[in-house]
Order: sequence, then structure tokens, then C-alpha cells
Amino acid sequence: MNTFGNILKLTSFGESHCPAIGGVIDGFPANIDIDVDFIQSELNRRRPGTSKLTTSRNEADAVEFLSGIFNGKSTGCPIGFIIRNNDAHSNDYSSIKDLFRPSHADYTYDQKYGIRDYRGGGRASARETAIRVVGGAMAKLLLKQIGVDINARISQVGNVVLNGTKEECDKQYSEIVSQVKAEGDSIGGIISCSIQNCPVGLGEPIYGKLHAALGFAMLSINAVKGFDYGMGFDGIGQKGSELNDVFCNEGDGIKTKTNNSGGIQGGISNGEEIYFRVAFKPVPTIMQDQETVDKEGNKVIFKAKGRHDPCVLQRALPVVESMAALVIADYYLLNKTNKI
Amino acid sequence: MNTFGNILKLTSFGESHCPAIGGVIDGFPANIDIDVDFIQSELNRRRPGTSKLTTSRNEADAVEFLSGIFNGKSTGCPIGFIIRNNDAHSNDYSSIKDLFRPSHADYTYDQKYGIRDYRGGGRASARETAIRVVGGAMAKLLLKQIGVDINARISQVGNVVLNGTKEECDKQYSEIVSQVKAEGDSIGGIISCSIQNCPVGLGEPIYGKLHAALGFAMLSINAVKGFDYGMGFDGIGQKGSELNDVFCNEGDGIKTKTNNSGGIQGGISNGEEIYFRVAFKPVPTIMQDQETVDKEGNKVIFKAKGRHDPCVLQRALPVVESMAALVIADYYLLNKTNKI
Amino acid sequence: MNTFGNILKLTSFGESHCPAIGGVIDGFPANIDIDVDFIQSELNRRRPGTSKLTTSRNEADAVEFLSGIFNGKSTGCPIGFIIRNNDAHSNDYSSIKDLFRPSHADYTYDQKYGIRDYRGGGRASARETAIRVVGGAMAKLLLKQIGVDINARISQVGNVVLNGTKEECDKQYSEIVSQVKAEGDSIGGIISCSIQNCPVGLGEPIYGKLHAALGFAMLSINAVKGFDYGMGFDGIGQKGSELNDVFCNEGDGIKTKTNNSGGIQGGISNGEEIYFRVAFKPVPTIMQDQETVDKEGNKVIFKAKGRHDPCVLQRALPVVESMAALVIADYYLLNKTNKI
Amino acid sequence: MNTFGNILKLTSFGESHCPAIGGVIDGFPANIDIDVDFIQSELNRRRPGTSKLTTSRNEADAVEFLSGIFNGKSTGCPIGFIIRNNDAHSNDYSSIKDLFRPSHADYTYDQKYGIRDYRGGGRASARETAIRVVGGAMAKLLLKQIGVDINARISQVGNVVLNGTKEECDKQYSEIVSQVKAEGDSIGGIISCSIQNCPVGLGEPIYGKLHAALGFAMLSINAVKGFDYGMGFDGIGQKGSELNDVFCNEGDGIKTKTNNSGGIQGGISNGEEIYFRVAFKPVPTIMQDQETVDKEGNKVIFKAKGRHDPCVLQRALPVVESMAALVIADYYLLNKTNKI
Repeated sequence: MNTFGNILKLTSFGESHCPAIGGVIDGFPANIDIDVDFIQSELNRRRPGTSKLTTSRNEADAVEFLSGIFNGKSTGCPIGFIIRNNDAHSNDYSSIKDLFRPSHADYTYDQKYGIRDYRGGGRASARETAIRVVGGAMAKLLLKQIGVDINARISQVGNVVLNGTKEECDKQYSEIVSQVKAEGDSIGGIISCSIQNCPVGLGEPIYGKLHAALGFAMLSINAVKGFDYGMGFDGIGQKGSELNDVFCNEGDGIKTKTNNSGGIQGGISNGEEIYFRVAFKPVPTIMQDQETVDKEGNKVIFKAKGRHDPCVLQRALPVVESMAALVIADYYLLNKTNKI
Repeated sequence: MNTFGNILKLTSFGESHCPAIGGVIDGFPANIDIDVDFIQSELNRRRPGTSKLTTSRNEADAVEFLSGIFNGKSTGCPIGFIIRNNDAHSNDYSSIKDLFRPSHADYTYDQKYGIRDYRGGGRASARETAIRVVGGAMAKLLLKQIGVDINARISQVGNVVLNGTKEECDKQYSEIVSQVKAEGDSIGGIISCSIQNCPVGLGEPIYGKLHAALGFAMLSINAVKGFDYGMGFDGIGQKGSELNDVFCNEGDGIKTKTNNSGGIQGGISNGEEIYFRVAFKPVPTIMQDQETVDKEGNKVIFKAKGRHDPCVLQRALPVVESMAALVIADYYLLNKTNKI
Repeated sequence: MNTFGNILKLTSFGESHCPAIGGVIDGFPANIDIDVDFIQSELNRRRPGTSKLTTSRNEADAVEFLSGIFNGKSTGCPIGFIIRNNDAHSNDYSSIKDLFRPSHADYTYDQKYGIRDYRGGGRASARETAIRVVGGAMAKLLLKQIGVDINARISQVGNVVLNGTKEECDKQYSEIVSQVKAEGDSIGGIISCSIQNCPVGLGEPIYGKLHAALGFAMLSINAVKGFDYGMGFDGIGQKGSELNDVFCNEGDGIKTKTNNSGGIQGGISNGEEIYFRVAFKPVPTIMQDQETVDKEGNKVIFKAKGRHDPCVLQRALPVVESMAALVIADYYLLNKTNKI
Repeated sequence: MNTFGNILKLTSFGESHCPAIGGVIDGFPANIDIDVDFIQSELNRRRPGTSKLTTSRNEADAVEFLSGIFNGKSTGCPIGFIIRNNDAHSNDYSSIKDLFRPSHADYTYDQKYGIRDYRGGGRASARETAIRVVGGAMAKLLLKQIGVDINARISQVGNVVLNGTKEECDKQYSEIVSQVKAEGDSIGGIISCSIQNCPVGLGEPIYGKLHAALGFAMLSINAVKGFDYGMGFDGIGQKGSELNDVFCNEGDGIKTKTNNSGGIQGGISNGEEIYFRVAFKPVPTIMQDQETVDKEGNKVIFKAKGRHDPCVLQRALPVVESMAALVIADYYLLNKTNKI
């Protein structure tokens, strides 16, 4: 269950404080140019320590590719890669080894496995998302060949909807998160993602609907609590007569006049823009005292140490795009098998 | 992609107007009592023709089990079953064979496969959900052995939140849907689902988080546009300090004081109630004239014929429960392999 | 584990004496002509009761297709089918319900599942191979489009190698099997299979080597004890210098002068004839008294009743071809995803 | 297709001359002691350079575990590992980049992918089997907990059957291989493998028969051309009355008097010794001039350079055991889901 995808598959390993995290990208088509600088730049978008609002943990997050690339091109063989965990302060976490942090995965991992690498959250740490970004950047290189474009943006932070210019939104976001940080608290929000130029016909009935695959991908990201696409939850108040997307043809092929469907009908892409929303909860680590219990069930007070983000939305943007890219690339390949 | 699940797998086949729809349930543990009457009663909950608000298509929807059951018990071998399509009026659909109905899957299937069984929506018809209900009822029989209980209810129709007694909610629902039907229109809403007594430890990191599997399952249901769990989209406005679920122990084991997490932490069930919401769009078939295009791209007016539901929420309840049951049973079996 | 294949998938269900056996073919490409008569003729090749040397159980073995075919063509949707068990004499088997027949699966099924459909061998009966023949016939229809040809023949029965004309071989086979039948015994042998015109490039490194997939497919057939391809076990005595297949080019493209590799190099088809052998043991049911134990471990004498084949090779020919066809078709589709 | 297994999964990456090969072991149960010294000792059994009869390529083959192990125990999280390619002489291979070596995978990889890492055979090199040995050693650690024991031995080299004492067999093997090496040739043979104390009930009908999984595993190993189990190809000459394994009970439970079935009946282990044979062809690289063609199809003479084994059997022993261990461990875990 640490593998994502059907044809294009990303297998992931690694915890917050092990020697290295990494992955294997299998099923990647041969003969595609691998732009390692682009992949590293995607990783850099996710990297902590890039602003005063994100964790000060400063890691190079340099990806090392080990296989499957020859003379700058993919060979069709599995692409192994690792990212060293250079800046792991394991000592910071010894205080949490015997207690369960509220709304973290400490308790459930402990119950499930009977053992837990407590350092930095272990496998449950969002550090794992760096692997997704490598896989997603690779998928983007593939999708570039067919013109697909994927862009995510922060559309809401806390209760505040962001809908100004990019600059205005960034400013508003910074102000809100700075305020939350000052309070020693955390805050969630919504990331909206758009996929443009997706070919018609991607998506597999019945259990492989394109939006179900996108939802599965997004819900697998740390801190995500919800997903909708097209008019989603907001369309519930409208009638069928208001939401139906009428087909038309202005001489340039069959299109829809509106796109309440979000580019997917019957689980299959129809060529219109695919758009969806991803709801992130506030991260559970806050700089305030919290009640909890230790392993024996005794009440204790937990005081978070270490370096934590008050809001993950900024760093989650490349993660959302990456998971979307992995899904679209995978379904693009799957779709090649529907006809001979 | 017509198979759902990892260990407990449901494979589905059939279209709206073929001789029979059916499925295969594989990986079902041996020696479980198979209560065929219960399974049929679940199917009856989904069946059309049970009230004036649902399609008048009247099918017995009698499931016939073909294999894998011996002397009333599962044998561990695959369970094949079929449901005959007795009441298919194929003639009703000849008028739609050359056009694309708005917000239906006609266009995308046609583009994807180059061929389409247009009768009754073919494979894209919600008739396929009957197969899910058989699979889900089987999963419920398994879950009964370990005490898991799953219940779905309509929590919103259109813009109206339903939160009275069961009787009041039913009445309100009927009134709204009757009104919509009279207008020849359709309406959507939200189904809320609760899973009680789920064992601790179900859910597989990283890409097999329990809520991601539930989301995938729900999003694969016809007309579903969104999914969230725990505080979901509604929790975005709150801070970490407000949403964190504090652990406590009142002498009866470790619990959480609140359950904003929705019974899942780090993708793994924590023993609290699992709850989630599923957003359904209004079904696209409405009793009004709609513009669209034919296969050649010419503008035509589409007038729906046949029998259609103005609102699918009532009939979708057992489908939501079934998909949830399939996920929980599957993850229960998966979890047996985490330790030796 | 009742599903075979990666892209083109056959899911199978049914026991010897349940109402019907059947299957689901998923991932079958759209728009392929479905020649139902051909499929039935393949089933007839496997059918019992066609000669005095096979079991006298006389079943029509009529396949009923339920879905996925429209106007004589595949639609890309899953193809469900059933074959009714018309001629099941359940009473014949009541005597074996409490004992374990030697070299049958009675004991292992009982131990594994704690329950067993003992009638006619239940799920372990070779009756299941009829499902494979339907799936294989479908795969042959796909492969016909790309010119692949698959032929199996009996190359050895007991110790006797058959290498005359078809007529001579049939005669020799009949004589040997008649003799064995008269003795109330059973006999095994070897089926050799040839795949011609297989495209270059099928096979997936590392764990999806084409011959590994073929071997897996063959070893899953009832009574099969061995598999080799190319020079196989017989090539062991030769040196590398003798077995290496030298490449040449006589102006019509790159070929190999010899084909000791059996058409597969590095797990990937090279365009030469693929050939392999499948070893079948004598079926365990014999018309002689045999010692065994009952469920309580008491010694009993087992006397076989019912109708049984002294040799399965003749009826296994379409099964071997079918499994080969399923593998080649599946890998043909997989191979479409190796490049964009 | 670079992942092996159902529940316990080994994903493999790496070529002969890339920076490192490695893998990910997923689904490994939690809380098992990881004896890294044992794993390294298994790798050492496979390592080149350990005798004058194996390639002189001298690599430490030191495995570096990156994740999934904490305080000496498995955590249930994926176990990533790498083995650096320290001693790769890439220059040795520049001469082969434009030609196709006889009976190697050069031609088929080139045709399949349109690109090929020609250095040292790239992905097709037997170097990949080191990854299997790491995975297999891990599986052995798991199986040790349940008492399963797996042992492989060379039972035939060329035409010579080895059946003396271990010392005699080693001597005979050395003599034969030395002679072949002196001739600049290569030689194949048979490895026989025995699995003792396998629990009853492992194996999944229909397409997951235990011997089919073992056969698939063995046939995926480089240079393997055949597989049989139990009496295999050698049992063909005997009748059912001779080969059937009669059940008996001498007071210590149900057993079989003989074990021609090879410990597997109906695809499921019956508690007796599992034994099977694996046929290896002579490796294609020989120290003699060979005809072949270059990429343009021109005739050329190929002279092998570098370091090559005249016989791989010795080094293949841990590989055979490893693949067997992976299968048995995987099916052991699968079997835990057959009952609740």
C-alpha cells in the first residue's frame, strides 16, 4: 500500500528521521527527456525553510537519481531515487516517544503495529510528500509531451477566501498565517487545482473514474479532509436544469457551454478544464500546552518542541499538483490500452 | 478497473439493458453465514418503483447466487451472482443513440471507446449500483461478525439541511422532491454516513489511508461530486487549538474527548465513530427540453423519455453503506497481515 | 486470486456442481468483432463426452454472454458470461464428503478453509477450465487482429513421444489411452505449444518476463507439474557455444539463425516462434481401490464412482492455448504503455 | 512489473552500472527482528569474486538499509535499501553499444524501448538478483518465526547429475566448471530446492496456486528455462496408480505415505516437503568469437570482454532460495485472510 498508480507507479519509503527517504517510479515510458533541474525546482517549492512562515528545518532536499535514466532520457526501466535526511535532530523528539500527541498518528500507528518510529512523526510525517513531488515532477515531464498543464493555488485560508491578484493573495495569506503563528496556533484552508488540455477519454469505468482517482490521490495527502470537483459541495443547492452542461458546436468541435461538470462526465475527461478543491485541516502541532495521555494511559501535558509550520498550504501546492500529475499520466497510459 | 478492493474484491459487469448484470466477490473469508434474505432486502432498499418519487421502472431485482456458497456458508471460493434485467424497454432509448445528452456520459464513452451501448445509459447507468449493494450486503455479513455497524442518512436535499426526527426528515424530503418532480427538474443533496465499532488499526499508510479508500469508494458512485470526513470542509475556519482531539482515559481505555478527526488519524481508524459526507449532484436527466448536439455536431433539442428519478438520495443510501462496508471489510482483512 | 492478467483480466467463479460457472473479462479493447460461434467451438474442443476416451458427462457447455458486447462488437466494458451446470449428478459424490481422495485437493481445501464443497471436486474440479477457454477464445479474437497464431499438440503420452503425422499421433494416443482406461488407471504426458507471429517487444522486466507469465499461466492449469520453454530442460547438456542464437540479416531484417531461446530473450519476445512444453501428471482419479483416511483420520478404502477421464491431454489442448492467448494479449496491451 | 508479490512486495530498481541498485520491501509485518548480518551473509553467498570460477568483479555488495527498521525491528513501514555499484568498469562495455550480443537481451530491449543502457547488460544484468537476495533474506527472517526452512542445491551441471556428499558434489562441480572455463565456454544445470515445515493451507485457487507462484518466481530469474515440482517431468511415464499419494495416519496426524505431489495438492500446501527443480541454461557470454549483427543489421564479430561466470549455478543458489522465501512468506500472509 506504499505504491500509487496502475501503470505509472510510485513506490515510496522513508520516515522523517531515517537515513534517507526515496522511491521507485515504475512504468515510466521510455525515451522521455528527464530535466533534473526542473525536478529539483519542484522539490524546492515544497522545501521547508524557504520563508519565515514555514518550519526552519533547513534541508537541501537534493534528489539523487540512482537508475532508469541514461544519457538524460528515461529507459523504460524503474527509476530509483533517494533524498537524504540531512538535518534530522532526533533528540528533539525523545520527549514524545511515550505519549500520544493529539490528532497525530502516534496512537493509531502504535496500536496498529505495536511499534512506532516516534522521531519526527516517523512514517506519518509530511516529509514523505517530498517523494510524491519527485514522482509528480517526473509525471509532469511526461505530460509536457502531450500539452497537459496543472496549476494549484490557495483559494481559502481559514475562513478567508482569496480571490484577488496573485500578489494580493500572497500578502493576505502571509498576514493571516503570521498572526496564527504569533498565537502559537495553526490554520487550514483550501487548495484549488486546475488541469488544462487534458485529452478526452481519460478515466476508467466503473471503479476507476477519473475524479475518484483524483480524490483518492488528494485524500492520501497529509492533513487533507475533503475533496470535491466541478461544482462539488457548492452545486448542491442548484437544480439539474441549472447545472447541466449543454453541448454546443461553434464550428471548432463539440464543447460544453458551461463546465459545472469540472471536465469529467461519467468518470471520463471530456476535454474541458478539470478543476477540484482540496480541504486541509490546521496541522495538529501547535505551540501551546495540550492535554493528552501517555502509553500507560496517564494524563500528561504535551508541549511541542521543534520546528513546525503554522499552515501547510503554501508547501502543499506542489504536492497537490504532483498527485494530480501522477493520476493524469497514469490514466493517459491506461487509456492507450482501450483500443488496439 | 471494474474490480474494487484489495483482498475482498468485487468485480462488476453489466449494462442497463443487457441480459443480466452481475459480479464476483473474491477473497471473502470462509465459513461465514450467508443470509440471502438480508442481501435481497438490501437490494430492495435500492430498488426502483418503491415509491412515487422514484422511477416507475419495476424490477424484481432478484439476485441469483451461482457459486461460492455451500450449505448456507461461504466456502472461501469466489461468489458469482447475477441479477436479470427483466424490465428493460430498449425501444425507449433508440431516440438517443445519435445524440449526446447534457451532463451524461454519452459523449465521453463515445469518444473513449468509439462505440457505445446507448440503451439506458449502458454501463454508465446507475443500474450498476445494484451489484455494489450485493457486494456490500455480503461485506455487512462479514462485519456483523466483528460488530461493525454502518448507517447512512440524507442530511441535506438541495439547500435544505435535514436534522429533525427520521419521520420529519422523510416528510421534508418527500415534499421537496415532489415539488422538483412537478417542475420536471432534478435535485441533489448530501448523504452522511456513520461507521460505529470499527476496530482500531484499519488503514494502510501511505496511499491506502482509510479515509482515502472511503473517498475513492464514494466518488466512484454515480452522481457523486464531493467527499469529506470528520470536520471536513466545515472545519477549515477553525484553528488547530480548536480542532485537535485531546486524548483522555476515564478508566475505560484511551479515547478522544472530541472527534473532529472523524475516527481516523494518520489514515488509520482510532476506534471512535467514523463519519463522512457524500455530495450528490442533481441527476442530469430532467423532463425539460434541453439543447445539445448529435454525433455530427449538429444542434438538436433533447426531450427525455422513459422513467427517471428526480432525486437519487433515497435509493443511494444502501449504495453508500455498501461501498463503506466493502472498504471496512477489505481493510479489516488487510490489517490481519500487519503482524504475524 | 481468482483473477488472471494485468490489463486484460479474466475473473473466474464456479464449482463443479453449483448452478453455473462463469467469468468476467475486463480490459478487453473496444470495437473488436466477437464471433460467438468461434468461442463456442473452442468450448466444444474442451467439452467432455466427445469421445469414448473422455468422461461421459455430457454437457452442452453453452456459453451465455451477459454484457459488454453490443451489435456484435466489444464495447470496452466488462464482458460477463456464464455456463450452466446442466448435468451435475450431485448424488454421485455424497460418498466422498467425509474422506480425502489421494492426490486430490480434498484435504488441502478442507484444512485451508474449514469447509469444502465436496461435490465433484468443487472449485478444484477441472470444470473451471471451461471459463479459461471462453477467456482464451476472446483473447484469440483480439490476437487475430494482429496476426498471432497459437497451436498446441500432444507431444508425449506416458513415456511415448508422439512425432508422426497428426493422424498417426491421434491413433497412437487413442491406443495408449484405451489401454490405460481398460486397466482402470490414468496417464499423463506433455503438451507442446507454439506461438507464431508474436510481435517483438512483449514481456516486462523484471518480474513480468514473458516466459514467466506463460509458465505461471500453465502451472495454474489443473494437473500441470512442469513447464519449460525454448531448449528448456533438454538444453542443459549443451554448452553456451552450442545454444547461443546467432543474429543474422539476410536482407529481410534481423533474425536469429537458430531459436534455442524459444522466441524470448531477456524475458521479451524477439519475433521468432515462441514454443514451450507443459507436463501433465496422470489424473488422480482411477477406477481402482485406493487406501486413504476419512476426516477423523481413520483408514478407509476409496472406490471412485462417476465419470472420469483416463487422460486429460486431449481436452487440455484448448486450455493450454487459451492461457497462452490470455498472456500474449495481456502483454500486447501492456506493451502499448512503454512509449508515448 | 518491477514489483514482486501480493501482500509482501519487493519492488526492484537498478542496472549493472548505475550509481546504485536497490529495492523497497513493502507489507513486511511489524515487530520482526532484523538481523542485518544474516542479510549481508546471504548477499555474500551471491557475491561475485568469491572463487576463481566466478567473475572476478569484486564488489563489497554492502546493503544499506534506509528505512522501515527501528531499534533492530521492522516497523510495518516500507523498508528501502540500496547497494552501491562500486566496481563498475563502464569502459569495458563501450564496444557493445552498437551491436546485439547473441542470446542476450540487447536486441529485445532495444526494440521494446528504443533506448538501452548497454553498460554491463543494463537492467537485464543478473546484478539485479542481489536485490532479490536482500528481499529473500528478509522473508527468511519472517519465515524463521514460523519454522519454515528452505534449501537449494546444485543437482545437475551440464549432463552430470550430482548426487554424492556435499563435498563430492562441490568437487565435481568445480572440475566441470573449470574445464568449461578453460574452453572459454559456459554451462548450465539444475538447481533443486526443498522447503520444509511449510504450514498446511498456503496457496490460493485458482490462478494463485502455490506451485504456479513458485514457478513464476523461478522463471523470472535470469537464465532460467524450466521449472517443475514434485515428480514433474520425470513423473510422466508413471500411471496414476503409481503416483497417487495415499493418505495415512500413524497416530500423529494425517500424512501422505509418498510425496510425489511435492507437498502441494490442488495448488495448496499439504504439510509435506515442497520440492522443485529449476533449469538454468548456460549463460550466453562466452570467451569465443561469435557472429552477430550491429544496429544497422551489418554482420560483425563479437568478442566478449570483461568478467563473466562460466556457470551461474553456485551464485544462483541464494537467488532461488530467496524467491522461494518471498513466495512462501507472501502466501503465508495471504492465508491469514482466508478466515476471520
